[in-house]
Amino acid sequence: MTSDRHHENVPTDHTGLRVLTFDQCLRRLAECPVGRIAFVLDGEIAVLPVNHTVLGLNVYFRTLGDSKIEAAVNGDRVSFEVDAYNPRAKDGWSVLVHGTAEVVSDREDLRRLEPITREPWVPADSSRMTWIRVRSTAITGRALWGDEGRRSLSASGT
Amino acid sequence: MTSDRHHENVPTDHTGLRVLTFDQCLRRLAECPVGRIAFVLDGEIAVLPVNHTVLGLNVYFRTLGDSKIEAAVNGDRVSFEVDAYNPRAKDGWSVLVHGTAEVVSDREDLRRLEPITREPWVPADSSRMTWIRVRSTAITGRALWGDEGRRSLSASGT
Repeated sequence: MTSDRHHENVPTDHTGLRVLTFDQCLRRLAECPVGRIAFVLDGEIAVLPVNHTVLGLNVYFRTLGDSKIEAAVNGDRVSFEVDAYNPRAKDGWSVLVHGTAEVVSDREDLRRLEPITREPWVPADSSRMTWIRVRSTAITGRALWGDEGRRSLSASGT
Repeated sequence: MTSDRHHENVPTDHTGLRVLTFDQCLRRLAECPVGRIAFVLDGEIAVLPVNHTVLGLNVYFRTLGDSKIEAAVNGDRVSFEVDAYNPRAKDGWSVLVHGTAEVVSDREDLRRLEPITREPWVPADSSRMTWIRVRSTAITGRALWGDEGRRSLSASGT
């Protein structure tokens, strides 16, 4: 680890990446319009982008009623990932949610989801869409320092 | 499916997404500076962004020698995903590689990788970095039509 990446108040992991706080993870998770649901299907790991919504500590997204996702995820361990990066600054971060997935069938929950729903990007009959909930068991995140981060740390005298 | 999304030369999957050709998948995979490696670690699915390089049909990336990735992936089934999206146009695509991962140890292969290597975003001693190869067994991709796609299809008279 080089000296300009060391800062007493900012924890890093063993690869030198900055560890995001829980609040930072949750905010980035909610602000990202697209995330990726990862699940095991027929012995392979599927990773598919979806538009999602965050409610409390859980992630929600809609899928077509007959989709592979619905069949695959019910009750299973899944992960949900969001990230962003800036190639010019060589900067970036990612947040990973571990959890279990389930179809949302409770009418009360569906009513709470309706007003906060982003318009789906896939034009489809919404009556055919199924809500999936990822019940999070762990939310973690990492960030690269990037050029800006390195500059500001150097400027702060470390 | 609405009529403006039907086009005789463009196959769609059962959810109405446009199916990318193999060549389209491979080009997008190579052009994207960042992709996500997905692998199973201690019963959870890890999804981590990495800078990657494509050589032939395989995906290569570097990781710190003592990383979780190196320990987890050797010989195992993994997936590698790239995507891009435009929230304003509600447009996007993704490409998913299924395959097996292995540490690259062959000196000839390492020599071929060196000149095409993007500078890593994580500043690290390159002698501590290990190359990982994802030997692809399947490469598939999907795209949303997006507003532009829908307009051009409508304009083409379908």
